[in-house]
Amino acid sequence: MERIIMAHGSGGRLSHQLVQEIFQRHLSNDFLNQMNDATCLPGSEKLAITTDSFVVSPIFFRGGDIGKLAVCGTINDLAVAGAQPRYLSLAVILEEGFPIDDLERIVMSIAVTSRQAGVAIVCGDTKVVERGSADKIFINTTGIGSVQERLVGPHCIKPGDYVLISGTLGDHGISILADREGLEFETPVISDCAPLNHLIDSFYMPGVHCMRDPTRGGVGTTLNELARQAQVSILLEEEKLPLNPGVAGACGMLGLDPLYLANEGKVLVIVSPEAAERVLTQMRAHPLGKEAAVIGRVEEADPGLVLLETPLGGKRIVGMLEGEHLPRIC
Amino acid sequence: MERIIMAHGSGGRLSHQLVQEIFQRHLSNDFLNQMNDATCLPGSEKLAITTDSFVVSPIFFRGGDIGKLAVCGTINDLAVAGAQPRYLSLAVILEEGFPIDDLERIVMSIAVTSRQAGVAIVCGDTKVVERGSADKIFINTTGIGSVQERLVGPHCIKPGDYVLISGTLGDHGISILADREGLEFETPVISDCAPLNHLIDSFYMPGVHCMRDPTRGGVGTTLNELARQAQVSILLEEEKLPLNPGVAGACGMLGLDPLYLANEGKVLVIVSPEAAERVLTQMRAHPLGKEAAVIGRVEEADPGLVLLETPLGGKRIVGMLEGEHLPRIC
Repeated sequence: MERIIMAHGSGGRLSHQLVQEIFQRHLSNDFLNQMNDATCLPGSEKLAITTDSFVVSPIFFRGGDIGKLAVCGTINDLAVAGAQPRYLSLAVILEEGFPIDDLERIVMSIAVTSRQAGVAIVCGDTKVVERGSADKIFINTTGIGSVQERLVGPHCIKPGDYVLISGTLGDHGISILADREGLEFETPVISDCAPLNHLIDSFYMPGVHCMRDPTRGGVGTTLNELARQAQVSILLEEEKLPLNPGVAGACGMLGLDPLYLANEGKVLVIVSPEAAERVLTQMRAHPLGKEAAVIGRVEEADPGLVLLETPLGGKRIVGMLEGEHLPRIC
Repeated sequence: MERIIMAHGSGGRLSHQLVQEIFQRHLSNDFLNQMNDATCLPGSEKLAITTDSFVVSPIFFRGGDIGKLAVCGTINDLAVAGAQPRYLSLAVILEEGFPIDDLERIVMSIAVTSRQAGVAIVCGDTKVVERGSADKIFINTTGIGSVQERLVGPHCIKPGDYVLISGTLGDHGISILADREGLEFETPVISDCAPLNHLIDSFYMPGVHCMRDPTRGGVGTTLNELARQAQVSILLEEEKLPLNPGVAGACGMLGLDPLYLANEGKVLVIVSPEAAERVLTQMRAHPLGKEAAVIGRVEEADPGLVLLETPLGGKRIVGMLEGEHLPRIC
């Protein structure tokens, strides 16, 4: 493999390999090696930091746009690390010829979403490249959060824990696909793109061991990462996975697996058996968590594996996403 | 003006207009409105933050590459704000088909430069877009620095202050132009791309009122920004501007003005008359400041203007860069 292929950006196996073999290898340090969604920085006040570039296509989609996504994606990476998102930087790369009205629409969406989430945009940068040297607009947001207590993470996961998700799987993935390919489903699918920090505030309590937002690569890939890092296995129950009818229909029709579809407004929570019920109740009381569900549990056997139990009692291994599923989903 | 044109990315007048009319207008807040190279964040420990995307073409040039530039550019924005650069995030957008060897070369250059500057890369992100949807590689770095004492800035500039520069003008701009166009000059020009934090540490003292790194738009545009923000005028002496022979030759041959050429390893310092001599001595004692010079002074008359005194005693107004000089210089 001597050149970058699309699958290097999938969030799946090849993405991980690229990060390890090129970035980790040369840039390794204690911070970067935390390999969490956000990195904890030491200091008199503990801070968390995360960065994300957004290259989603189309830039306007049902339920959001690249600006809303760029704010939510970075806020969510901080929030799932147990940090309070406070500040965002905003860097925009524009293609020559990009309509300024579209830029303004995107910036207004950034303004609304960041206000809603209670996060300030504190610095910015704009670059322009020649027509054909970029596709319309790319946005980077880097987020700073404050860490009140402990940072949660894979090291806290224990066998016996429950796996919860705050709502339905794959809405963002299917919405982007539908917009891109001009597909119409009987039940329209709208991206779940949303800032999760207030939802997470509402259920964050002792017993919450790890949180992740299953974006690129979906729930399947995210849980594989956790199972490997925590050296446990995760057993999912297929019939408990919440799905919108439109997503279920699209997956059936197109042969897609909702476990690998991107979400942009969902949080996976690994929680102790004692706290699971209370976390679920709190989640469901929040507008963004109405369809929260327990979808599986953590086990000791087969460390590193994610398994799916079918309604008939069979089990299959859920691997990391292989190849590229849906390019430029975020 | 309904579409983005290259001049929106020049760092000159149109860039400022775009930032004010679109970004500032919708995202205005006390942090963003500092309009400094880095933004100071409140908290028990004062922090500074800055973000920059790098889209330089070619990605490898005499004296550096896009990776080295991405580290230096962001470190320098923190250092000129009077902050100690500590952490960098690193986000890479790759074009499908990009050679992995080139990526590794760039990442190694990032590793060397960040180590040299004493700054840790603490988090990262990689996205891949289809062939033709980006030009090779774009890099965003966002930097966090700690603020020991005061943040310097335009509000500290006073009439009577001296204007110093740490070395020759325009080396980065001419080096990129030469590489891009395949030009050969009698004296080869090498980019000055370098991290300035150690140089700045060596001369930072009371009496230093403002620092800036004159990148896109060059010394001319940067001083215009300062003259406007501080409501003073700045009088430059043409014969005191330090120039490498290769840059002087190229400017003469191509009709370019070194005042608008980008620098990536130079700092402009506005300093009180009492401290000027000591700052200059300290600068010259550092390998990156050997050719430091006093190039002008701050005056009360004509607030907002930058003037250039020619060797014959004439004066001309140095405006902000108009249009696009050299696209994708950083």
